[in-house]
Amino acid sequence: MIKDDSIQKFLDELAGSSSTPGGGSAAAVMGAMGAALVSMVCNLTIGKKNYAEVEADMREVLGQSENLRLRLTGMINDDVGAFNQVMAAYGMPKNSDEEKARRTAAIQEALKRATQVPLSCAKVCFEVMQLAKRAAEKGNVNVVSDAGVAVLAACAALKSAALNVYVNTAAIKDQAFNRQKLAELDNVLANADSFTDGIYGLVKSKLISH
Amino acid sequence: MIKDDSIQKFLDELAGSSSTPGGGSAAAVMGAMGAALVSMVCNLTIGKKNYAEVEADMREVLGQSENLRLRLTGMINDDVGAFNQVMAAYGMPKNSDEEKARRTAAIQEALKRATQVPLSCAKVCFEVMQLAKRAAEKGNVNVVSDAGVAVLAACAALKSAALNVYVNTAAIKDQAFNRQKLAELDNVLANADSFTDGIYGLVKSKLISH
Repeated sequence: MIKDDSIQKFLDELAGSSSTPGGGSAAAVMGAMGAALVSMVCNLTIGKKNYAEVEADMREVLGQSENLRLRLTGMINDDVGAFNQVMAAYGMPKNSDEEKARRTAAIQEALKRATQVPLSCAKVCFEVMQLAKRAAEKGNVNVVSDAGVAVLAACAALKSAALNVYVNTAAIKDQAFNRQKLAELDNVLANADSFTDGIYGLVKSKLISH
Repeated sequence: MIKDDSIQKFLDELAGSSSTPGGGSAAAVMGAMGAALVSMVCNLTIGKKNYAEVEADMREVLGQSENLRLRLTGMINDDVGAFNQVMAAYGMPKNSDEEKARRTAAIQEALKRATQVPLSCAKVCFEVMQLAKRAAEKGNVNVVSDAGVAVLAACAALKSAALNVYVNTAAIKDQAFNRQKLAELDNVLANADSFTDGIYGLVKSKLISH
């Protein structure tokens, strides 16, 4: 599992001349860092006398952010697995018409499965962004910058995952499938930048006036 | 060194109830992932017959991206070190006026040093973004999405580092110092979003028409 590799090894493999791990895994790592930073803000808010009023809320956010972190950490590997399945399908024999048809069908099926990984990543990152907002608004102001980094990381991860959805849908011939998946993506992507800008502004204002 | 820790351990420590590692280290990791992805695009372009014309350019980009990756990887730890120096200064004795004055001076000095880490991170991420642009424009179109993820990661890292500059300057009393450092930051931050949007659009259009 990539998550058990050192950061240095992961970076070296990302930089190397193999297609995996690539941007899909990097997106999952960014999303997981975003979720982890939300958890950190919660952990540094819970139990503090000055934040007793928001403690129940921060406990709820923490439960959710840790769940999302677990899912995103799993996606670091899922992206590699999905890519390998697509490559395996492309590697199928194509000597007869029957083999060609079987290969084409396998490629299309693998591409559809591969679309689901970045789409799920994008949806989970959208949820991380919502939690980062609560952490930025209510969490310990001493670590509000970490809530800001959380939303930046989750938003970059969401948009990175979106690019990986486009990679796949561009090669999928089933247009009804593509319309459905791109609509699901647009649901979480549409206001991501303005949402992030809003939290960034809030965090910056808290830092400057603090 | 944090870079030798597993991704899982880093994420667990990020999420935990210690202030370090925090958003500053996460920013350095994001920036390093951005640089690594630029390198990957170069590595998958160099030596390809269809890209012979851009080979010299991609070799130059690769040399620079690997240098920036090395610097950003070092910054993962620098952020923790700078924070610990600030905390050590806050922990100095304050029983007499003399001790108080010495402590205040030490805090201010540590904060100034601590400002330099995220400011350097922001500047290096700005350079990664320029390289990601060249990789997106000229690199192997089969991995153009990775150039897109590179610019998203580097931009999120730059803005994250900016928040960590504000954390420090808000507590620094030397306004001339703050003006100078914030001007340096604005130089790299000013057009970061529109620059990133431009590359994101380019990458998306190449993916859809590819």
